[in-house]
Amino acid sequence: MKRKIYNALISVSDKSELTNVLRILKKYKIHIISSGGTFNYIKKSGFKCQEISDFTEFNEMLDGRVKTLHPKIHSGILFNRSKRHHLIQMKKKKFKPIDLIIVNFYPFQETLKNNKDQRKIIENIDIGGPTLVRAAAKNFKDVVVITGKNDYLSLIKELKKNKGKTNINFREKMASKAFGLTSYYDSIVSEWFNTKLGIKFPEKKTISGKKLEKLRYGENPHQESAIYINDLKKDSLGLNKINGKELSYNNYNDIFAALDILFSEKKIPTTVIVKHANPCGVASNKSTLLSFKNSQASDPISAFGGIVACNFKINLKVASEINRTFFEVIMAKGFDNNALKLMKKKKNMRIIDISKMNENYKTKIKLFDNSFLLQENDSIVFDRKKLKFVTKIKPTQKEIKEIEFAFRICKFVKSNAIVITKDQSTIGIGAGQQNRLDSCKIAAQKAKKFQPSKLLNSVAASDAFFPFADGIKTLINCGVKTIVQPGGSIRDKEVIKAANNAKIKMVFTGTRHFNH
Amino acid sequence: MKRKIYNALISVSDKSELTNVLRILKKYKIHIISSGGTFNYIKKSGFKCQEISDFTEFNEMLDGRVKTLHPKIHSGILFNRSKRHHLIQMKKKKFKPIDLIIVNFYPFQETLKNNKDQRKIIENIDIGGPTLVRAAAKNFKDVVVITGKNDYLSLIKELKKNKGKTNINFREKMASKAFGLTSYYDSIVSEWFNTKLGIKFPEKKTISGKKLEKLRYGENPHQESAIYINDLKKDSLGLNKINGKELSYNNYNDIFAALDILFSEKKIPTTVIVKHANPCGVASNKSTLLSFKNSQASDPISAFGGIVACNFKINLKVASEINRTFFEVIMAKGFDNNALKLMKKKKNMRIIDISKMNENYKTKIKLFDNSFLLQENDSIVFDRKKLKFVTKIKPTQKEIKEIEFAFRICKFVKSNAIVITKDQSTIGIGAGQQNRLDSCKIAAQKAKKFQPSKLLNSVAASDAFFPFADGIKTLINCGVKTIVQPGGSIRDKEVIKAANNAKIKMVFTGTRHFNH
Repeated sequence: MKRKIYNALISVSDKSELTNVLRILKKYKIHIISSGGTFNYIKKSGFKCQEISDFTEFNEMLDGRVKTLHPKIHSGILFNRSKRHHLIQMKKKKFKPIDLIIVNFYPFQETLKNNKDQRKIIENIDIGGPTLVRAAAKNFKDVVVITGKNDYLSLIKELKKNKGKTNINFREKMASKAFGLTSYYDSIVSEWFNTKLGIKFPEKKTISGKKLEKLRYGENPHQESAIYINDLKKDSLGLNKINGKELSYNNYNDIFAALDILFSEKKIPTTVIVKHANPCGVASNKSTLLSFKNSQASDPISAFGGIVACNFKINLKVASEINRTFFEVIMAKGFDNNALKLMKKKKNMRIIDISKMNENYKTKIKLFDNSFLLQENDSIVFDRKKLKFVTKIKPTQKEIKEIEFAFRICKFVKSNAIVITKDQSTIGIGAGQQNRLDSCKIAAQKAKKFQPSKLLNSVAASDAFFPFADGIKTLINCGVKTIVQPGGSIRDKEVIKAANNAKIKMVFTGTRHFNH
Repeated sequence: MKRKIYNALISVSDKSELTNVLRILKKYKIHIISSGGTFNYIKKSGFKCQEISDFTEFNEMLDGRVKTLHPKIHSGILFNRSKRHHLIQMKKKKFKPIDLIIVNFYPFQETLKNNKDQRKIIENIDIGGPTLVRAAAKNFKDVVVITGKNDYLSLIKELKKNKGKTNINFREKMASKAFGLTSYYDSIVSEWFNTKLGIKFPEKKTISGKKLEKLRYGENPHQESAIYINDLKKDSLGLNKINGKELSYNNYNDIFAALDILFSEKKIPTTVIVKHANPCGVASNKSTLLSFKNSQASDPISAFGGIVACNFKINLKVASEINRTFFEVIMAKGFDNNALKLMKKKKNMRIIDISKMNENYKTKIKLFDNSFLLQENDSIVFDRKKLKFVTKIKPTQKEIKEIEFAFRICKFVKSNAIVITKDQSTIGIGAGQQNRLDSCKIAAQKAKKFQPSKLLNSVAASDAFFPFADGIKTLINCGVKTIVQPGGSIRDKEVIKAANNAKIKMVFTGTRHFNH
């Protein structure tokens, strides 16, 4: 079904590339209606244009709040060109058709970025624009709606191909984009209100994103994939890639897992190495070089080909160490020039500056088919005041610091999680097992294999309580001297007894950290 | 900032409980404007009411498509009561304030459920309603917007408390709900267009949900959480709980993981047991009882307290077997009466009928802070025609069936994943390790521990290629005779050689199944 365009209503804040459209409208003798800045721009560019107030015979009022919210405009858009009684009503009223809408919305999101004045933010919630766009999109059977300059070229092509007309397929595609935009726009407005009012779990929740890029494929080559972004305050992820191939789905997934852990330590130089979304090494150290070396030593076999994240600027020494093996991605808060130069010799290695990442996020969402689970981020480690020293021997202040490190890293390992550490470095990580004993065994085996000497007097953390004493016995047998866990099992007594028998220290945090 | 209400515009499809509001409006001498069905209802209920067309002096046209899209209405809503020049403009035009909007939208989602007539669906995209609601919500400083009967009671309370006025806090809260609704509504419309046009990765994507329930807490007790649902066609998850305590966040998470696996087998009776979002046992068998028993035997220690999902109706024999141990959740496609009666004796055990679950979903979404990864669901196992039989000894047709089972289950185990099976039952699952050798070891250890006799001539599947021969050697040493894997490593030759040396069969699928 082709439709000719008689009248077009144009109202855009971004005027670039508009003249290309104006030229083609002129060619097909399409009458243009506009107002304000757009009207002036069109006239100045040498095209004919009618003022909206002239078209409606109604002067805009309330500082432009009411301008297009007029029956003449909306009848012109919404009447069904195939219905006789619609045509008769339009004729009787002498209303004219409006067949093309080119509209941008007030820049609500942009205003948020640069503004704290609430009145100004609210003034930038567009009412007229979304109404025009929604009306035109609803009536795509007869009307074309263009919501951004990215579609100017396809509009021009479509009009040329059909000599001033458009095809239904084109109009429907534009309508789908229009509703994508209106839901996105209102989602941003809605989130702004929710944040402002501290509403964490609104009755209706929308999560929205702009497509950042289509990825080569998804988690596997036979799955298509894309990455989307939505931020009230900025337009990018904050990942500044300065070397290497494009990022894959699995890269992003591992990057997110790594950053989640990395951002839990704000002060001490820390390195996180991730493989398959689980950490295989985490180490904090005053020396950035030791932080890197220790994280790698935790499980050098798994670390090969992994994702490395550093919360510090990488210098030449660290870069040389990195270059000795193969990593898929290196992320850091900046790079010394000579370090960068050296690392860039590995053409494929993705090097990413994360200085501009947002380190504070509040909610986590998990989706399944038609539903999603929304929860607050797990943002605490434990409350020192609530620690219970349940064994006869109590840990020292220094050991409490180590306990805190071990328990914090454990929070990010997929449950059931056991993490053994020494001197703020992981030495054994047991991840993702269906029972706790298996996680204990894996953590112990790793430590024994790669750094057995560090096992002596090491600290172990468990993300949830030990249901039996078998798990802690496994840990104790390999040299662990301090265990931190939430506590709360009906067999806590039995577990504490085993700890006392082995003369080790055990601390209950009261805080569980499942992470699946 | 309290605001008095002079005029209210009401237009609702759901008239229930409206009279409670009408009574309070009458009490405070609030003038009511309405039209169509709502107008008739108000008059019939014995309240005064003015027709919208009478208020605007403009007859509605185009079968009601244009009715409230009028400057008199929208100036009445949008003028700033604190700005002198707005007041002057309103006075000059003799426009009246509209201070309260009570509006429902055309039931787009409901129409979708019961309708395939595209014209009817499109006719139910509301234009006037969302415009009224958005305008009123934008101007919440002066105007109240009510979008559903759930808020009638709080409106009544607010008016009573403030003698016909409302407070800014109340108005802003209602505004936040309004934008929640408009973004939700347009998100549904947008998804309908995208589905219709086969657009998988639109430029703007919104994921929306209605709050189904606030959960007791999230993954851990210190995290708040809620579950949301959004379906174009239905209102519930399809999980019909008939016994037991409320479902927790972790229950839902495990349920989703279990159903994902369960729905991959449509014909043969199958049981899946999940713990910490990973399967600890999966078995298919003509006998439902054996399906359950075998799945449990795969790792009885981990299965304790797990989530059980059956794609069949549970009879008394299976129920008796289930009752012998402790499970958090039992899901099945129905239950025999005597089976249900028996299981209900366990008061806390959650029993869920999943007969009405949607078994086909197409996309998976992973979120991180301000971004999300959208990908197609991993919906294939492998293409039989593309199988490569790379060893000297080739598998039989029966073995290929077993290979298919093992590789399919492996797809759902967190990467790196190794699954050992015998007779359509898992006997060893190695999940979530940062390197493949570790997953091989774990799978082998589990099988050795619980069902060593079944290891002889068993089949092992790997979700991705073996980077070295060490992994398959571990499997071969414990009795595995057939290995299925994608292939594609630079050391494939080495791996095949090891298989040939051990006289086992190996099949390459060409399909990888990472799952994190």
